[in-house]
Amino acid sequence: MLRTHQAGTLRAGQAGQTVTLTGWVARRRDHGGVIFIDLRDASGVAQVVFREGEMAERAHALRSEFCVKIVGEVSKRPEGNANAEIPTGEIEVLATELVVLSEAAPLPFPIDDRVDVGEEVRLKYRYLDLRRSGPAAAMRLRSEVSRAARAVLDEQEFVEVETPTMTRSTPEGARDFLVPARLKPGSWYALPQSPQLFKQLLMVGGLERYYQIARCYRDEDFRADRQPEFTQLDIEMSFVDQDDVIKLGEDIVSALWKLIGHEIPRPIPRITYHEAMAKYGSDKPDLRFDLEITEMTEFFADTPFRVFQAPYVGAVVMAGGADQPRRQLDAWQEWAKQRGARGLAYILVNEDGTLGGPVAKNLSETERENVVAAAGAKPGDCIFFAAGKTSTTQGLLGAARDEIGKRLGLIDEDAWSFVWVVDAPLFAPVEDIGDDVAVGSGKWTAVHHAFTSPTPEWIDKFEQDPGAALAYAYDIVCNGNEIGGGSIRIHRGDVQKRVFSLMGLGEEEAQEKFGFLLDAFAFGPPPHGGIAFGWDRIVMLLAKADSLRDVIAFPKTGGGYDPLTAAPAPITAQQRKEAGIDAKPVKPAQPPAAGAQNTKPASPQS
Amino acid sequence: MLRTHQAGTLRAGQAGQTVTLTGWVARRRDHGGVIFIDLRDASGVAQVVFREGEMAERAHALRSEFCVKIVGEVSKRPEGNANAEIPTGEIEVLATELVVLSEAAPLPFPIDDRVDVGEEVRLKYRYLDLRRSGPAAAMRLRSEVSRAARAVLDEQEFVEVETPTMTRSTPEGARDFLVPARLKPGSWYALPQSPQLFKQLLMVGGLERYYQIARCYRDEDFRADRQPEFTQLDIEMSFVDQDDVIKLGEDIVSALWKLIGHEIPRPIPRITYHEAMAKYGSDKPDLRFDLEITEMTEFFADTPFRVFQAPYVGAVVMAGGADQPRRQLDAWQEWAKQRGARGLAYILVNEDGTLGGPVAKNLSETERENVVAAAGAKPGDCIFFAAGKTSTTQGLLGAARDEIGKRLGLIDEDAWSFVWVVDAPLFAPVEDIGDDVAVGSGKWTAVHHAFTSPTPEWIDKFEQDPGAALAYAYDIVCNGNEIGGGSIRIHRGDVQKRVFSLMGLGEEEAQEKFGFLLDAFAFGPPPHGGIAFGWDRIVMLLAKADSLRDVIAFPKTGGGYDPLTAAPAPITAQQRKEAGIDAKPVKPAQPPAAGAQNTKPASPQS
Repeated sequence: MLRTHQAGTLRAGQAGQTVTLTGWVARRRDHGGVIFIDLRDASGVAQVVFREGEMAERAHALRSEFCVKIVGEVSKRPEGNANAEIPTGEIEVLATELVVLSEAAPLPFPIDDRVDVGEEVRLKYRYLDLRRSGPAAAMRLRSEVSRAARAVLDEQEFVEVETPTMTRSTPEGARDFLVPARLKPGSWYALPQSPQLFKQLLMVGGLERYYQIARCYRDEDFRADRQPEFTQLDIEMSFVDQDDVIKLGEDIVSALWKLIGHEIPRPIPRITYHEAMAKYGSDKPDLRFDLEITEMTEFFADTPFRVFQAPYVGAVVMAGGADQPRRQLDAWQEWAKQRGARGLAYILVNEDGTLGGPVAKNLSETERENVVAAAGAKPGDCIFFAAGKTSTTQGLLGAARDEIGKRLGLIDEDAWSFVWVVDAPLFAPVEDIGDDVAVGSGKWTAVHHAFTSPTPEWIDKFEQDPGAALAYAYDIVCNGNEIGGGSIRIHRGDVQKRVFSLMGLGEEEAQEKFGFLLDAFAFGPPPHGGIAFGWDRIVMLLAKADSLRDVIAFPKTGGGYDPLTAAPAPITAQQRKEAGIDAKPVKPAQPPAAGAQNTKPASPQS
Repeated sequence: MLRTHQAGTLRAGQAGQTVTLTGWVARRRDHGGVIFIDLRDASGVAQVVFREGEMAERAHALRSEFCVKIVGEVSKRPEGNANAEIPTGEIEVLATELVVLSEAAPLPFPIDDRVDVGEEVRLKYRYLDLRRSGPAAAMRLRSEVSRAARAVLDEQEFVEVETPTMTRSTPEGARDFLVPARLKPGSWYALPQSPQLFKQLLMVGGLERYYQIARCYRDEDFRADRQPEFTQLDIEMSFVDQDDVIKLGEDIVSALWKLIGHEIPRPIPRITYHEAMAKYGSDKPDLRFDLEITEMTEFFADTPFRVFQAPYVGAVVMAGGADQPRRQLDAWQEWAKQRGARGLAYILVNEDGTLGGPVAKNLSETERENVVAAAGAKPGDCIFFAAGKTSTTQGLLGAARDEIGKRLGLIDEDAWSFVWVVDAPLFAPVEDIGDDVAVGSGKWTAVHHAFTSPTPEWIDKFEQDPGAALAYAYDIVCNGNEIGGGSIRIHRGDVQKRVFSLMGLGEEEAQEKFGFLLDAFAFGPPPHGGIAFGWDRIVMLLAKADSLRDVIAFPKTGGGYDPLTAAPAPITAQQRKEAGIDAKPVKPAQPPAAGAQNTKPASPQS
């Protein structure tokens, strides 16, 4: 090692020792011929002093972020000069030697946690950004998170298995990224959206307990915070039911939140999907505040107000919202329209009990008399209403609930709230999902994925009422974020075929797309289930970061662009030709020949 | 859990307990109405007995690899029936309940370690193959290997960082796999050949100690045992010199070999590249046997034999080889020709001291008198000679050495021999490497890679004699296999530019290809170095497997074909259109517009 000590570890007890330090010049201050620098390395910062004379003269040439080696003596700082803010605040190092290991050009931005330059610049110079204490701490936390999870899994005898990332294109709910196969021109690999099929095959293979911190790939339109490649902690277990996977999941999140000093009360509560939607208008409810939606469908069963003559009517109360200015009430309408709704009906409950706003006068007298109590409001509140199809209307009210929570400061930003959402629907109408890459051509598509088992009570009859059938699935939600989810899988080939059939995936198509999984299920597959945790999101929450990009070493921005390497980029004509991108695929009519040619096993090397 | 106990854990002390087991029917034997099955789960095997009557009748329907649940009582086996071969051999389980969890179709091959079906079939049904104890053990060993390495790295404060796998195409010595970017049609990502550039950027970023068990991708012609995707343990450290990385490397391999009960003597010996080539004709010498090559260039300095009038002549002795039949000596010639040599000269040293073979008569009398002693041979031996360019000739003799070792049984298959090979050449003439994807257009190319530092003594003068300049690099070799390698990197921009320049990589081209790394080096890069271990190969050695494919969960065969999923496969016209494969790239003349469009940061979700 070029150094004897790490700068951030020096303490008063080491006074008198000669040390060699290496690191970066974080700050330089000249005090009448004496020069002080803050020397930073991965462990922290120590003050180095260059006394007047030759050393000070040479130190004078130091600039921010020069990389240096310093030999000097640890010394207690003079009385009154100690700095209680930093762990090394009681000492300084009196330099006797200085070697500039490398110089630094003027920086595009200062290495300072208080400076806020644009993200584009930070990511272009991500190697400088990572020298800031915040991003550096996020990287270290991420490493600790993986370590803590592995410790739980190791202790429970899980086997870490690496599954392929150059595989076959399968329809899992999003677009695949593709890779041309130079050695089989016209054919393509796909990058996996998840190790789903492989982990199920490992269960068929008798591995019983699998995990992997797996890179996954989805070619989506990168709105918001999505990354084309992302990481999940992927887990699968055999001979389990839902409670077993949930217990393991709790073991893991408990271990992770302990890293930041938070003890999660266990068991983590469970709520059914339908209850979550009814009470909170979300399948990932934020339970840091307890505002609930009130269903008013019955209440408005005979309403003269046409807008409320709907399959579902609900309300959510904004405490003290009656005195919102007109402008703000209009803004709520805009907000609702941006979410695709026609607007957000409201009643203002004046302090004297009279009702304001345009809706009230459309109601019957009985309704007017009872609506405040029925909605759980009180004088001074604003009641927001929405009416229409149950799920979308609940969703709108749920979003209004979240917005109210934010505006009224109901959310304790230091709180952690966990909940399992169970008993979700197994299927949804394709038209509701708006899924442009739906598997199969049926009216129904899988809400989770096509391998999710129906619950035991639905397994033999889900065709009778697909919309009501429940999935043997569970999502874990933290502060309104889905951080993990999984299910007990279908292990019976007959059930899998029935599910495919309902989704309009014909036997031939299913065989073509998932044939190897269906084949595997012919050979004594065990009952199995699993879960996957969104690793980027979990680390983001633990780090209290604003964006997934803050907890990824080299993230991509919108559109999948990497400001650092400028990827993606055009390729050369030679690369294109060599990769066989424009080759015609071997016709399906001739698979035996192609197969024979390509499936010849390579001879072992030794 | 569907079970209360793991089958393989049952012992005589549990006799009398009622247990529930789940697993697979490994074997069924009928003994006059009583049925015995071997029930296998991940923990091992236990014998289950179905007594006459209803249970036996139901058990009669069981077939190999049915997945079952059994309730029964643990019972000591009757006197004389214990099986000392298996850990559960003292007990059996008397079944009282049987549930068939799933049935199995007739198997394409029996689940038996002694059966040897073709690899193609094994891989097509890999999920069945993995039920065999050998492949299952290999998967578990691999998991243990990763765990043991992480324990060493965690203890030494390494940070695990995930680097991108969708990145920019960079010339690292092999072809890149490419991925079309749908959102930037005409542009492509590349899958990384290694995290090399990113780990160096992390060092510039001040992370100091990085590791990752990283998936890497090389689009090579899959001769022999190569996989298009492979795994390496990738490590980088700042403020280190060669000894630090070597020590860490030894900590890791020591921990790994301890897993199989082998203590590696430390320090692991080091040998220079030139010594390894001179003595063993290989930069990855197998030191399980001590046969050495003898250089004879001086000896033949004035030889009348034209073949030996060469820059280098060497010899290797095959003890007792004088009595090889003519056919076998011809076979050696064939062997040499297959390696691209013109043949392999030889002298047979007869028991009476006379010389046989076609070469002897071409030598001078003095040479004939002294050649046996000079080559270190004795009566009864065969001396093989090769002459020509030093490196290729040494390589041929080294291969002959290995072949002799095998034929004469000199290699102890239970031995482990480790050695570090250091002081390798920094550059080699492009024509020697035969590198069809050489970086740059110069006469010289980097032997390791373009970021390897010259040794301190060569750093200021490598241009003066590029062929003699030494790399600050180190490879670790186990039993003749390179299992890891690395180097101290160039951290000075000026040195990097001189290296590029020697390789004929112009400033503009270097900037285009590695610009972001060169840019980073402008900002106080620390001295750093690292190493990468070939994870597949290491697990293969530890598992004593024949092929890398044996230690990969779902490997590809020759040509990059996956017999299980039949990847790669043709894609649909819609996929092709959507992926933007045939879009024209945005012209380099217009990058600002494209950049502006694609680099817009996505807004954070919360």
